[in-house]
Amino acid sequence: MAIKLYDLAGENIERRFSPFCWRTKMALAHKGLEYETIPWRYADKEKIAFAGSERVPVIVDGDTAVADSWKIAEYLEGKYTERPSLFGGIHGRAAARFVNSWADVVLNAALSRLLVLGILEHLDASDRAYFRASREKRFGMTLEAYAADIEGNIAALRGALEPLRVTLATQPFIGGDTPLYPDYIVFGSLMWARSIGKTRLLEINDPVEVWRGRLLDEFGGFARKAHGYW
Amino acid sequence: MAIKLYDLAGENIERRFSPFCWRTKMALAHKGLEYETIPWRYADKEKIAFAGSERVPVIVDGDTAVADSWKIAEYLEGKYTERPSLFGGIHGRAAARFVNSWADVVLNAALSRLLVLGILEHLDASDRAYFRASREKRFGMTLEAYAADIEGNIAALRGALEPLRVTLATQPFIGGDTPLYPDYIVFGSLMWARSIGKTRLLEINDPVEVWRGRLLDEFGGFARKAHGYW
Repeated sequence: MAIKLYDLAGENIERRFSPFCWRTKMALAHKGLEYETIPWRYADKEKIAFAGSERVPVIVDGDTAVADSWKIAEYLEGKYTERPSLFGGIHGRAAARFVNSWADVVLNAALSRLLVLGILEHLDASDRAYFRASREKRFGMTLEAYAADIEGNIAALRGALEPLRVTLATQPFIGGDTPLYPDYIVFGSLMWARSIGKTRLLEINDPVEVWRGRLLDEFGGFARKAHGYW
Repeated sequence: MAIKLYDLAGENIERRFSPFCWRTKMALAHKGLEYETIPWRYADKEKIAFAGSERVPVIVDGDTAVADSWKIAEYLEGKYTERPSLFGGIHGRAAARFVNSWADVVLNAALSRLLVLGILEHLDASDRAYFRASREKRFGMTLEAYAADIEGNIAALRGALEPLRVTLATQPFIGGDTPLYPDYIVFGSLMWARSIGKTRLLEINDPVEVWRGRLLDEFGGFARKAHGYW
């Protein structure tokens, strides 16, 4: 029986923009596991309550429910050991945790300012009031104020990506010669940007953009086929 | 024959403050390799010209000279395979490269503003004019202007360490249960701060400070015995 993945969807139910769900979708593809997605919206909190979570991704694999992208990656790695490794060993997993933390607190924070109005625009109508109220409380200002300095925010994003850029100067993927879960972590953030942001945020010849193109092509162009702008 | 390490020294020849040399010293300790240091100053560029480098660390291991902390770590890992691994495999090494890039472009940049006047103060007299001129050219301002906003720079440093802090919430070291080379990369930066900065930059209960304490204790308190302030 295929794994089920609760996957954040926009007003267009095919628009799947959660960076955390993208981590999981790339991990499932890397493992070559069959899965089906269940589109989920912020208003559907009771539909994932069985997993003890208010947020997606949530997967259901037979009798097992797992919430949180990191825990899902660990679960898949531990359960499907005969399939390609996501981490390349316990030390690879430990170092991936640093990449995960960096993506959460640095990269996603930088992207958030650039994407928040696009998210609002693409959300299902039932989710918009919730999204505005919860985010304005978190940011301590209106979404419009939070997003105001577009040029400055693009420059900050490009600056924040410098550690990745330097890494890619000597190896094609964060995982080395082939992509591993740390690549999917960071790529998930850029799928978020691609799914709901109309503005191309990276220059064509940026090594990060070249790397993003390689990951869009992985698994038969799986991510490239997703609803998005660039 | 013990490995030789050219190690940046201050006016007090026992003060060894280069973050990159600290990466190498911790890597040598991790491998349990005997080595001796040769104190080196910026004025001594001709003494390491044989290694094709103008910067330390440089090691000499028998007939082999290697410059650059990352290349040295790769050399030690490849040569001394029977000793404890620095990376935990090729994927661990690949992910370590990201940590290395982050430390170089984010962490060391944040520390640089806090340490530059301390470096100047602790340098050998023969190095001070070179240091001021080369760094003022690089920064495009006087060292005093570069270092002026101490409170803001401390706040920026603590903020920059957030990905490490989040990582350490779930594991004791970046390497996992035990320290690996990614830990030494970041720790090297904090040894730079300890060697020439009189101001304690981290709060006592900061998880990063707790982790730093564990690494000061590694290898029989090897790093704690070094000349430094905190």
